[in-house]
Amino acid sequence: MEYITSVKNEKIKEIKKLANAKGRRQQQRYLIEGEHLVHEALINDIVIEELLVTENFLNHDEHHLVKQLYDQCVQIGDSVAKHLSATVTPQGIFAVVALPPTDPNIDYQGKWLLLDRIQDPGNVGTMIRTADAAGYQGVILSKDSADLFAPKVQRSMQGSQFHLQLLTADLQKIITSFKQNHVTVYGTLVNEQARDYHQVQAPKNLALIMGNEAQGMNNNLAQLADKNLYIPLIGQAESLNVAIAAGILMFNL
Amino acid sequence: MEYITSVKNEKIKEIKKLANAKGRRQQQRYLIEGEHLVHEALINDIVIEELLVTENFLNHDEHHLVKQLYDQCVQIGDSVAKHLSATVTPQGIFAVVALPPTDPNIDYQGKWLLLDRIQDPGNVGTMIRTADAAGYQGVILSKDSADLFAPKVQRSMQGSQFHLQLLTADLQKIITSFKQNHVTVYGTLVNEQARDYHQVQAPKNLALIMGNEAQGMNNNLAQLADKNLYIPLIGQAESLNVAIAAGILMFNL
Repeated sequence: MEYITSVKNEKIKEIKKLANAKGRRQQQRYLIEGEHLVHEALINDIVIEELLVTENFLNHDEHHLVKQLYDQCVQIGDSVAKHLSATVTPQGIFAVVALPPTDPNIDYQGKWLLLDRIQDPGNVGTMIRTADAAGYQGVILSKDSADLFAPKVQRSMQGSQFHLQLLTADLQKIITSFKQNHVTVYGTLVNEQARDYHQVQAPKNLALIMGNEAQGMNNNLAQLADKNLYIPLIGQAESLNVAIAAGILMFNL
Repeated sequence: MEYITSVKNEKIKEIKKLANAKGRRQQQRYLIEGEHLVHEALINDIVIEELLVTENFLNHDEHHLVKQLYDQCVQIGDSVAKHLSATVTPQGIFAVVALPPTDPNIDYQGKWLLLDRIQDPGNVGTMIRTADAAGYQGVILSKDSADLFAPKVQRSMQGSQFHLQLLTADLQKIITSFKQNHVTVYGTLVNEQARDYHQVQAPKNLALIMGNEAQGMNNNLAQLADKNLYIPLIGQAESLNVAIAAGILMFNL
């Protein structure tokens, strides 16, 4: 097994570039970190291009990940692990996997979450995890949302990228396609003129749009939606965090 | 008006200590930042001990905060603002306010959220904001939770500390008091042996306990609770983020 101890190694330099969106786009792959995520990738039949592990991990490999992926495996020194890690105390296991196809076949069935310019990576990741837990088919992000495979998004989505379809697309076009395919599209507004979500009887096939943290959903999208919903608030808070609002709606529609 | 340009000024050194829990505990006060929060404090009759503003803020003081608080106001240089700020681009307004009483009178009415060892400041803050939006009376944190007035908690709670009662206490004692006062106590478990939350008819007075991100709620608390609830998941995600789970429960109970 190859053993890399220098952060200046060419392979490590290429992998390090996956920490930002440009590197991921150019190489069409991304880095996952930690035993749980690598295990999740494996059981979901995701192709693992490279597996990087420290000596310490090799000695505590409870799921025998290295054995299963021996041909892709490279041992790295602790300083290399620190260099690649998005956490303070790396577990000592990383894998490089391909980005999902940018234009997957949408079957226009089931429930979909659409994110319009969500900026906070934690919000994006948490909403994807919640959509997964609520049995959604997939999540579609507008082009100016937080980047799907940024380390902070990954930390919040906790492996849900292996469970549902994720893509970045033009939301106006997507919404039009959903409507042509008889999928009901719900926008969300922080506005009592919208419809109280308690009053809708949600169909089996639907798309739910959540909007930017500060500005809410784009007006064009509100006009395209079949209905716009709001969550009535009882207390003094002016609004809910967008991921909380999405959670309430996904578990009630 | 006093004008401070050095971060070594004694007043600034004392205020800077409010960035950590020890400083806040010793001085029994905390720092709030940004126009929205200072305005919220004012309209909620919170006593403002010090108001610190930059020249730039003085020129854009839309709510006339400086006029209202002239006696407490000190002008600071931009480098002092940067030094005190928890953000990259400070708005140039800070206020020092007293910590709320550690042992407020609980009236054992309405709905309460109890947080057992929640570690992530964003989760604590978001749950407080959600409790506010759901019309809860207050939030009670166990002693080993994230510190209530840490900058990251404040950023997520968005001023909700001025709308509901917040305290840190021994949850076992608090739960016993709630039960003695005929408040129904619901624990939460990630466990299908607990009761599906759809099956409970929530009373007017209740306390809802949310547990640690990784370990869930302490077993002792689960035994004390009147009932333990869970949220059935449909998809493949193993669990929900604790703040999302709290949001779903608070808006459905």
